Amino acid sequence: MMWVAVDVMSGDYGPEKIIEGAVNAVNQDGANVVLVGKEEEIGEILLKFEYDTNKVRIQHASEIIDMNDSPSIAVRTLQDSSIVQATQIVADKTCVGMFSPGNTGATMASALLYLGRIPGVLRPPIAAPIPQENGPPMLLVDAGANVDCKPDYLAQFAVMGEIYSKLIFNILNPKVGILSNGEEDKKGNTVSLKAFEMIKKLPINFVGNVEGRDLYGSGKDVDVVVCDGFIGNIVLKATEGLSKSIFNVLRESIKQSSLAQTGALLLKPTLGAIKKRLDYAEYGGALLLGVDGICLIGHGSSNALAVQSAIRVAVECAQHQINDRIAADLKKYNI
Amino acid sequence: MMWVAVDVMSGDYGPEKIIEGAVNAVNQDGANVVLVGKEEEIGEILLKFEYDTNKVRIQHASEIIDMNDSPSIAVRTLQDSSIVQATQIVADKTCVGMFSPGNTGATMASALLYLGRIPGVLRPPIAAPIPQENGPPMLLVDAGANVDCKPDYLAQFAVMGEIYSKLIFNILNPKVGILSNGEEDKKGNTVSLKAFEMIKKLPINFVGNVEGRDLYGSGKDVDVVVCDGFIGNIVLKATEGLSKSIFNVLRESIKQSSLAQTGALLLKPTLGAIKKRLDYAEYGGALLLGVDGICLIGHGSSNALAVQSAIRVAVECAQHQINDRIAADLKKYNI
Repeated sequence: MMWVAVDVMSGDYGPEKIIEGAVNAVNQDGANVVLVGKEEEIGEILLKFEYDTNKVRIQHASEIIDMNDSPSIAVRTLQDSSIVQATQIVADKTCVGMFSPGNTGATMASALLYLGRIPGVLRPPIAAPIPQENGPPMLLVDAGANVDCKPDYLAQFAVMGEIYSKLIFNILNPKVGILSNGEEDKKGNTVSLKAFEMIKKLPINFVGNVEGRDLYGSGKDVDVVVCDGFIGNIVLKATEGLSKSIFNVLRESIKQSSLAQTGALLLKPTLGAIKKRLDYAEYGGALLLGVDGICLIGHGSSNALAVQSAIRVAVECAQHQINDRIAADLKKYNI
Repeated sequence: MMWVAVDVMSGDYGPEKIIEGAVNAVNQDGANVVLVGKEEEIGEILLKFEYDTNKVRIQHASEIIDMNDSPSIAVRTLQDSSIVQATQIVADKTCVGMFSPGNTGATMASALLYLGRIPGVLRPPIAAPIPQENGPPMLLVDAGANVDCKPDYLAQFAVMGEIYSKLIFNILNPKVGILSNGEEDKKGNTVSLKAFEMIKKLPINFVGNVEGRDLYGSGKDVDVVVCDGFIGNIVLKATEGLSKSIFNVLRESIKQSSLAQTGALLLKPTLGAIKKRLDYAEYGGALLLGVDGICLIGHGSSNALAVQSAIRVAVECAQHQINDRIAADLKKYNI
């Protein structure tokens, strides 16, 4: 039986929505979950739900790592935090994987410290799914785990991202590209150009350089986009900022006119489609690839659907033995 | 009298819209323009407009550099192209500045080759204005001119961007930040952290690290954001791709339902506000900072308003002697 550890304490809006998502995963997807956090609080919230009690356990954790805590210090000093406790029950094989909507840096640091890396992995990257207009998401690897990446890190990101895209999003022969400042082969910086040469030699479906616009389906068709985590973080936050700003303008102008209010009402399905277009909830979170255990990192504002999706992805990763596959491919390709 | 050279041939949609923008600049802003391109074609189009003939000249250029031409080769071999000819009449001081909606790399290469750098400038960056919900635009420096930037390049970008923001967008004491993967001082990569230390020592209003979301007003208040051109290019293209994709979803769903069509009609002012929010036309183009002459680079799809705005910015840059100020400040700060 595969159990998934769910840190229910570290989300922006408290444990209730997280627990709701976990219970939905149990009831609708047959998942088994260990809810990690303050036992009493979790117990009380659970009273509101119906579920198979054989499939839900509680792991007490008395502390919470805050969004503003220093990751490297917090994971060492707050040993009884929900993030560290969730990691520990993956490390001791009670669970196959974990999900946390908390401090990204701390979740990453905890996974690196207590799970360690898969043999051969140089730097575990964050693989973030970017929703597309149609079909499965595109994966951005690395979405922020590592700065100052070397070319061989990027080559490994390509291999790991390709496996993830293939096994979890069922893309037969994922197209892999490098994020660059132009499509032509000679465009890039020193690191991306060297990585280009390394990835070109791998037996994967490499489509070469891709541009920023390709991330949102406005250009080259690509399934996995590799980049330095410094860039991945900036790009994701920039597009998040832009979409927030667009919805702000929308909300403000609608407030100011009753005509616009009627218009918005009639356009509701359309605006819903746009929101969905930008909604990561369906994919649950970003996967920290290359650590020895499954670790999914969610938005602080994860809703019940995001939690349920993340639990589903964790189980699928374990079922498909994604980590064995990563170790095998890196060895086979000798990178 | 200050003349501005306008490359009318290199836009995506031919010379007419470009010429219209230039004529508007003459009629509405009192500008003096040299239209650079095929003399006969320009002459014919000019017949459609009324304007003071003392304020419009034509500089014949028989060739056009294509969007797909290799910049470094094109600017050497296509000497009679509109881009090179426009640059030449800035180099020989006939004009104070130039605007081209053509091949960005070629415009940049032409400016570097024929105008050269202002004394002391290490690498001229592209300063791209990013529209904000209210007030003047934010400047992203470098939006794509240089990859593999060193810390001292970034420090110079900060100085040049600050001057541009102050003189042209009338911001009294522009807030300058470095684009990074987190707001805390210790966040960054090797280059950005070193640049942070250098910029901190300059007598400018340095606000430290800013994040991707801050580019669209969703966070820290900042007027000038400094980054490597590799990153600037990727971020701008990603947000461009996202906004295109949002409007695609909107257009598609509106097509499919008459209710949505009515809704869109009622929401027209709102959608207009959002479009404006994403519209660079008001600012005309991006300025190549640090070359010895004013060089504005427009979108290939520049409309008449964008051209008119770019001409206005070119004149203002010359009036405010922005380049003398750059040379003086770099010398004064000894960077």
